Amino acid sequence: MSEVNRIWRLRKRPVGDITDDVLSFEEESIPEPSEGAFLFRLNYLSLDPTNRIWMSDMDQYMPPVELDAPMRGVVCGTVVKSHHPDYAEGAIVSGLGVWADYQIGTPQIVSPMGDTRPVAVVDAFSTFTIVGPTAYFGLLDIGEPKEGETVVVSAAAGAVGSIVGQVAKIKGCRVVGLAGTNEKCAWIQDDLGFDVAINYRTEDVPKTLTAACPDGIDVYFDNVGGEILDACLKLMNFKGRIPTCGLISQYNATEPVPGPYNYAMILMQRLRVEGFIVLDFAERYPEAIATLGQWMAEGKIKVRTEIVDGLENALQTVKKLYTGANTGKLMIRVKDV
Amino acid sequence: MSEVNRIWRLRKRPVGDITDDVLSFEEESIPEPSEGAFLFRLNYLSLDPTNRIWMSDMDQYMPPVELDAPMRGVVCGTVVKSHHPDYAEGAIVSGLGVWADYQIGTPQIVSPMGDTRPVAVVDAFSTFTIVGPTAYFGLLDIGEPKEGETVVVSAAAGAVGSIVGQVAKIKGCRVVGLAGTNEKCAWIQDDLGFDVAINYRTEDVPKTLTAACPDGIDVYFDNVGGEILDACLKLMNFKGRIPTCGLISQYNATEPVPGPYNYAMILMQRLRVEGFIVLDFAERYPEAIATLGQWMAEGKIKVRTEIVDGLENALQTVKKLYTGANTGKLMIRVKDV
Repeated sequence: MSEVNRIWRLRKRPVGDITDDVLSFEEESIPEPSEGAFLFRLNYLSLDPTNRIWMSDMDQYMPPVELDAPMRGVVCGTVVKSHHPDYAEGAIVSGLGVWADYQIGTPQIVSPMGDTRPVAVVDAFSTFTIVGPTAYFGLLDIGEPKEGETVVVSAAAGAVGSIVGQVAKIKGCRVVGLAGTNEKCAWIQDDLGFDVAINYRTEDVPKTLTAACPDGIDVYFDNVGGEILDACLKLMNFKGRIPTCGLISQYNATEPVPGPYNYAMILMQRLRVEGFIVLDFAERYPEAIATLGQWMAEGKIKVRTEIVDGLENALQTVKKLYTGANTGKLMIRVKDV
Repeated sequence: MSEVNRIWRLRKRPVGDITDDVLSFEEESIPEPSEGAFLFRLNYLSLDPTNRIWMSDMDQYMPPVELDAPMRGVVCGTVVKSHHPDYAEGAIVSGLGVWADYQIGTPQIVSPMGDTRPVAVVDAFSTFTIVGPTAYFGLLDIGEPKEGETVVVSAAAGAVGSIVGQVAKIKGCRVVGLAGTNEKCAWIQDDLGFDVAINYRTEDVPKTLTAACPDGIDVYFDNVGGEILDACLKLMNFKGRIPTCGLISQYNATEPVPGPYNYAMILMQRLRVEGFIVLDFAERYPEAIATLGQWMAEGKIKVRTEIVDGLENALQTVKKLYTGANTGKLMIRVKDV
């Protein structure tokens, strides 16, 4: 075992975009697991839009990362030293950890991955740990799409959005996705089967969206907030649903961000806007994983992963999420399982 | 029967506050009911915040009043000529009508009041036609308050808000109300039993509200939108509910109104924001009326009505709703039943 532990620590709360001075990359000693805990070595680090939330001190759904503490992340690793009977050395685990080669796990926040076959560990981690259940519960439980309804999803070529659209297609909906490049639009429309893809950077969103949704919108799966939310609100049908999964357009804002100008549509059309975090559905993960796994095996759901090698590249890579530079699930690979 | 029918017609869509030129008061001939319809004479005209919505061409929940058409209103009247077997001459009816002495009713939009005893017709019309069921269904069905939770209501001395707070007290909640004068605050706290009343015009709302809600807010019954909504969002508890009944702070706006700056709290605290209109609950009116009637008979719910005599005063009187100049249900009386 190497004697050195490389670890990213939060040094400054970002103001606006994430800058190079918000995190520092340190070499430290490897921690020792206490009774009931275990030490694991990082294989994959998931990079997610919520990382920017955790860095800041905005109102959020769990405490922010403290200054000078290790940066929090969703991780997959291999147990190398264990003081817990359920976590044998060599076991593959995933859960909430930190951006470090070696780290301590406890059963409260890190679980065994179990046998993921026929899906490779990297794909199981990529799809089943966060983004798959997020799409599954957010769309089906909060969005409640019905056959023949129109579902719109933003960040549609993203890790969550791409699955949302495919699940909505499985449920018999008309699906419209918004993405930021022509390549992304081609992928969701030609490969994933979305009915319409809109490039929100080059097209007039209110106009194009109106044309793409001749029967209005029944479910808007919101990953972004901002102008796209406003354009969708304007088109929502009576009793429409807006599962609120993310508001990435405003995470990097330096000034207070106004809510949607069409907020009154919530009243006029009797909409339901409901926020959720996938952790709220933790008890029902097996259901989501089984169903999504089946759909993937049948070729009904395709996923795309963007893997960058090297923990040292984590800071530069996470920035991509906020400029739309990635496609599909973004991850750092330290060492393949 | 007088030969002349006085009638208010919409001549101009208001820009900002309602001005004297948006409606004109005309003398016209009395209409003749066709087969299946009936003619009724106005007794009471309900004045409601939604009147301003109907005058405008903003996005809304039913078509706006057309220019030059009679102004729409919720009315109570007495049948004077009938071509419908269920609506005998002399029957007291209520429903959706117009601001006119005489008007045509049909069973689709006007219903018999039935025997309202022991409640006087004026009180039954005042409480049971719109505001009581609005408070009842909005709070109980959308807000789902549980014993011991904290419920906040804006426009708390208004016709709907005052009932919302009293029903929440019946359900065992801590109730905080916001109103615009010290007299209104004294009424809801001393006479209606609210736990705390906040004068939003003279007090620092975010600060006072924080002090008034040491355990956060579980249900915010929103009648107003705007800054009060923002202050409440900031204090919402995990899985809080925001029944959205009205957004009166923005009905008279002349520029686009930004949504709440704390919109992201919907995501962070997994809130449910849900719009509703009492008409959506039309089938369950008997339940609301029976329950509210019982509570009123037991003295658990008190209502206050502000009655202004004379249809000719309708335009000047409706303006009061948008300046907070009224207390309790605002009505025009043409002729007592």
